[in-house]
Amino acid sequence: MAHQLAGRAGRPSQEKKYRFAGRMERTPRSFIREILKVTEKPDIISFAGGLPNPDLIDAGGIAAAAENVLRSDGRRALQYATTEGAPALREFIADRYRKRLGIFISPDNILITNGSQQCLDLIGKVFINPGDRVAIERPGYLGAIQAFSLYEPDFVSIPLKESGPDLEDLRRKSDAGHIPLMYGIPNSQNPSGISYDGNVRSELADILLEHGTIFVEDDAYGELTFSGKALPPVYRYAPDQTVLTGSFSKILSPGMRLGWICAASEIMEKIVTAKQASDLHSNFLSQQIAARYLMDNPIDDHIRKIRKAYAGQCSCMLEAIRRELPRDTGFTRPEGGMFTWVTLPENISSMEVFDAALKENVAVLPGIPFYVDGGGMDTLRLNFSNASEERIRTGISRLGKVIRSLG
Amino acid sequence: MAHQLAGRAGRPSQEKKYRFAGRMERTPRSFIREILKVTEKPDIISFAGGLPNPDLIDAGGIAAAAENVLRSDGRRALQYATTEGAPALREFIADRYRKRLGIFISPDNILITNGSQQCLDLIGKVFINPGDRVAIERPGYLGAIQAFSLYEPDFVSIPLKESGPDLEDLRRKSDAGHIPLMYGIPNSQNPSGISYDGNVRSELADILLEHGTIFVEDDAYGELTFSGKALPPVYRYAPDQTVLTGSFSKILSPGMRLGWICAASEIMEKIVTAKQASDLHSNFLSQQIAARYLMDNPIDDHIRKIRKAYAGQCSCMLEAIRRELPRDTGFTRPEGGMFTWVTLPENISSMEVFDAALKENVAVLPGIPFYVDGGGMDTLRLNFSNASEERIRTGISRLGKVIRSLG
Repeated sequence: MAHQLAGRAGRPSQEKKYRFAGRMERTPRSFIREILKVTEKPDIISFAGGLPNPDLIDAGGIAAAAENVLRSDGRRALQYATTEGAPALREFIADRYRKRLGIFISPDNILITNGSQQCLDLIGKVFINPGDRVAIERPGYLGAIQAFSLYEPDFVSIPLKESGPDLEDLRRKSDAGHIPLMYGIPNSQNPSGISYDGNVRSELADILLEHGTIFVEDDAYGELTFSGKALPPVYRYAPDQTVLTGSFSKILSPGMRLGWICAASEIMEKIVTAKQASDLHSNFLSQQIAARYLMDNPIDDHIRKIRKAYAGQCSCMLEAIRRELPRDTGFTRPEGGMFTWVTLPENISSMEVFDAALKENVAVLPGIPFYVDGGGMDTLRLNFSNASEERIRTGISRLGKVIRSLG
Repeated sequence: MAHQLAGRAGRPSQEKKYRFAGRMERTPRSFIREILKVTEKPDIISFAGGLPNPDLIDAGGIAAAAENVLRSDGRRALQYATTEGAPALREFIADRYRKRLGIFISPDNILITNGSQQCLDLIGKVFINPGDRVAIERPGYLGAIQAFSLYEPDFVSIPLKESGPDLEDLRRKSDAGHIPLMYGIPNSQNPSGISYDGNVRSELADILLEHGTIFVEDDAYGELTFSGKALPPVYRYAPDQTVLTGSFSKILSPGMRLGWICAASEIMEKIVTAKQASDLHSNFLSQQIAARYLMDNPIDDHIRKIRKAYAGQCSCMLEAIRRELPRDTGFTRPEGGMFTWVTLPENISSMEVFDAALKENVAVLPGIPFYVDGGGMDTLRLNFSNASEERIRTGISRLGKVIRSLG
């Protein structure tokens, strides 16, 4: 290492090498992040990202709530606050669980995070020792793979079937050695769009209880089920062994970075310690604005609007896929959420499709980074929430031509 | 572990024991947090916390900025954004470093965090392997002790003298074995209120460069130097080996949770990966509001107001200490920031003072948790930024009686 006083302040000399912590080697550079950089030009029709439809963000309503909060009690909203988060927001969440899902969670068992991504970091901190076996769906959510990787687990991949995770496989792997933690998204999974069947949820809970496995139930998309009907969360069947996470990103605003984590008191105590060490508390201004907004506006009406729009965009995309893509292309039929999952015809690689589609100004996301154990070379994640129906039709039509040209 | 299906959803059975990650054992439960719970009653005069004076939060100006952002470009402010943070805010920070300190940092080398506490978590992730020697001032900032503890370092304590850290001690300990990371607060340190002398800064940089030690320069209080004059940061002398952090909490609003981290490009690449895994990005709405506020308002006038007020509150506290506390009480003479540091007369314990003072409705913070290697039983941190001069005089007078009664 060179030790001279650098002459040009702030310009790191290129030769200098730093020594980083071992855990950084294990965290995949975000493939999505790199791809999004390429695809964010306005002339590109992008199915690569995971953004909500901006037309469904109620900026006017949030502006009114912000004015109300800042003009009436601004200094409190702008001061330091408690690590757990704004009581009014935590009470709203508890109340909604009770009304919507019939589950009873005390506001004391809810902590507000910076979007639900932070829940994963906190869970990694609190639960994962290096080398711990951590089960995840195959394909699994990239954000969870990234967050957990920093805590150096050994991932155990559980294949996703149309009904949910392969429970026989999970049972076999659990019998073979303790799995302290499993992560999954039972509603409209990212990336696959698959939702777990009702009986899969209760059977999964039985396996978790039998093996002493904590389940991280990521429910970022539960409110976006097109039918408006909700299956019971896994939490319902194994409350003491489930850490349930949620998010306002898909129903209110992602830019406000508001998510939450629900856990048993003994776990919550550790989560609070980890949260405090991580950033003291979440943005209090945003919490107060969100709480105000939710008190003043009929959120159910707004969510119904989002569901209806996404159901339309999804069915438009599935129809276009049926019409435009080769017949031996596989794809999931999401009942909610923001994504469908495509399996390409034999011998066509998703990276080739990605490159060729980009030349036609269409961006898709190869499924490879969603696999912790390799594979998935023939898969794509397509997002339908962020493009108009017209752009969906045009984009999928171009994608069809690209795939045929490679076949 | 009990494995039955719990009958009452959400009520963890008390017998159940969870297995947590080893790192959680090492993180001290926040003593401050526990104390603040006791002391937050309005009839208590509290010198225990570290809150800015709420009268100096410009809620009206921030409300106007929020309205402007949300009414003109709300959907963008409420959507997902880049991990690095809002360009306008990063440019403001770079510009201010240039104008205020004459140091040149590109906005590309600045990332926006959830308050500067999150910088410490990101630094821990990126740099600290379990067992790494990490140097910290003695007494050292509790938030850093908590954040770093999760990454399981071996702390190396460097005594703080009136001029800054004991450089001979640092040199001796660096010679004895590699210290990859050192953390310090050169301006108005928390908890001691001490500022490093100018020559200590450059000599410290020499030692860092010589030994290949990265310095984490926490500059949360640099803007609060009462005189308005700024000594060069350590960054100035060792830019490639200094990770510089800053905060809007003390000059704008803590509730918005906006801090930042500056680092050489090779380090920044890892910080971005860690930040993305931690929570994708910081609250974008707050970032846009802050950027707007800083464009529309003369922040220097506002900071001058804060400096003047805190200088007055500080000198009021020091005068009261001189007048009311026993003559053999030691205390620092801060040139800025929010705290003074008291060393009690012989054979008086800070915990006893804490308990007795609380009975008189005065809250003080025992210095014990600021020591990673024990000791400090006779020290107190007193905060002067959050109490009016009248309450300072009353509180210190009561504290004097309490200490005399124990002597």
